[in-house]
Amino acid sequence: MHPIRLGLVGYGKIAQDQHVPAIRANPQFELVAVATLGPHCPGVDNFSSLADLLAHGPQVDAIAFCTPPQGRFALVQQALDAGKHVLVEKPPCSTLGEAMSLIDEVKQAGVSGLFAWHSRFAPGVANAKAWLKGRTLTQVRVEWKEQVRKWHPGQAWIWQAGGLGVFDPGINALSIVTDLLPGSLFVTSAALSVPDNCQSPIAANLSIRSQAQVEVLAEFDFDHSDNELWRIELHSEEGMMRLDSGGAQVSIDGVPQGVSEEGEYPAMYRHFAQLIADKQSDLDLQPLRIVADSFFVGSKETVAAFHE
Amino acid sequence: MHPIRLGLVGYGKIAQDQHVPAIRANPQFELVAVATLGPHCPGVDNFSSLADLLAHGPQVDAIAFCTPPQGRFALVQQALDAGKHVLVEKPPCSTLGEAMSLIDEVKQAGVSGLFAWHSRFAPGVANAKAWLKGRTLTQVRVEWKEQVRKWHPGQAWIWQAGGLGVFDPGINALSIVTDLLPGSLFVTSAALSVPDNCQSPIAANLSIRSQAQVEVLAEFDFDHSDNELWRIELHSEEGMMRLDSGGAQVSIDGVPQGVSEEGEYPAMYRHFAQLIADKQSDLDLQPLRIVADSFFVGSKETVAAFHE
Repeated sequence: MHPIRLGLVGYGKIAQDQHVPAIRANPQFELVAVATLGPHCPGVDNFSSLADLLAHGPQVDAIAFCTPPQGRFALVQQALDAGKHVLVEKPPCSTLGEAMSLIDEVKQAGVSGLFAWHSRFAPGVANAKAWLKGRTLTQVRVEWKEQVRKWHPGQAWIWQAGGLGVFDPGINALSIVTDLLPGSLFVTSAALSVPDNCQSPIAANLSIRSQAQVEVLAEFDFDHSDNELWRIELHSEEGMMRLDSGGAQVSIDGVPQGVSEEGEYPAMYRHFAQLIADKQSDLDLQPLRIVADSFFVGSKETVAAFHE
Repeated sequence: MHPIRLGLVGYGKIAQDQHVPAIRANPQFELVAVATLGPHCPGVDNFSSLADLLAHGPQVDAIAFCTPPQGRFALVQQALDAGKHVLVEKPPCSTLGEAMSLIDEVKQAGVSGLFAWHSRFAPGVANAKAWLKGRTLTQVRVEWKEQVRKWHPGQAWIWQAGGLGVFDPGINALSIVTDLLPGSLFVTSAALSVPDNCQSPIAANLSIRSQAQVEVLAEFDFDHSDNELWRIELHSEEGMMRLDSGGAQVSIDGVPQGVSEEGEYPAMYRHFAQLIADKQSDLDLQPLRIVADSFFVGSKETVAAFHE
């Protein structure tokens, strides 16, 4: 079978660090073109826009979108109009309206689409799915605490209206939890701490209930320097599994477990190739919907101004 | 044909003023039972809960929900589990997650459901639909400005987290606009004014774009005493239609037009009866989704504290 000829839009940090290495390590794909306004990607044709790539570039079968979510909707629509499969970095769009419309438009275009909730491909998530089978889950506790100055230096858009603030990392935790728990998750309350000079929260405490009435408590903190942690505890009647480091490490009742050696992005691109082969899509709105519901029902408390 | 035997849950102001008179004026329905913790509804059996009504009341075919949106989700689920058709006052639920789940659950229950966006049944909306055919819409301007102290005295829940604030009336305008314009509406920006002692906005300016790239500008104000107005202007290349008084009055290029004499709630219950006869549902998420997107991407400005 021929490899899937892939174009990539937005050659920024996440594209350079994760997407391109994962694509190049996977013989199912061939990276043939990049659209970017920044530095060029070596070894492929570079274009200044997706429109230019589609009009004048080499033939592509699929497009991966690594630009910021603002403005991405119209770009993905261009690719769909051209009949291309699409992989869309998280969060897929800047509003629920756009994301819901994309789900319909991918279907209408008859192509494969993937909302790239990459944390679902963390090695430990597979362990957790297997472990949950036959166990009775009683509570889920999430702690997702990191230092924004370290991970998002100078990224003012995170704090603006429409920026996710602490939900930018937090949505990764939500993408794992929604993957592990069947049915819908309902936000019952949310407490958001918004810096005096920002529009988006720097910390959030969520109380969520699953369809099966399992309580999910999540603490997100974006100003946490010592002992950063990205942890999900699955408490069951038969013991406790803990995912650490965003799902890269797993322990059961304190005993470390072995996990797959495949990284998140390689596993995600393998999934994307399989979706294309199967003529399927994987476009889950739920992590974004939970964030929107948290803003909707959340109480906001103004806290000290944020300065880098 | 036998009338549809109807139970009603929540006998508060909206039920007394609108639902019960509309139901009793329509021979397609027979109101047979009410569940309420407040004053009893005369002429029917009253129960202290929906569970009690379902277990011990007269046989019902459908349930109308007039309780506040908080807590309504679980009640509607009870009715669906009992195989009843459901009419759910606006807004249907307190979160998008709950509303999206209800849409699935109505389908699974094999009954008819209606999210009761009552303003869509304002007489002038039919005029507007007819007028828009063959015209090229260029812009929609909404002004929805009223005095909250007059319409919601003592209703503190409006201002709490999860309360809609000025979107409680504003969602009526959005329900009309989404009914008139085809496709999805996308919130491009929102400016929310939140009183210092409240969690919900007292005013909002929205900028919205339709799928056909028509601009919709909306101004909502909840502290407007003189000359209250509930107005939608439809600007087209061929002239301008204006809906006033929430759609009860219509003019074209300044010339008043005749409208149907049927009120909103009578027309809505006629629609509900037709849905049941046709084994169909009408569960539109879009007005609630637009409100949630407005909270999600909106910039919040703190304004003077609100006191009744």
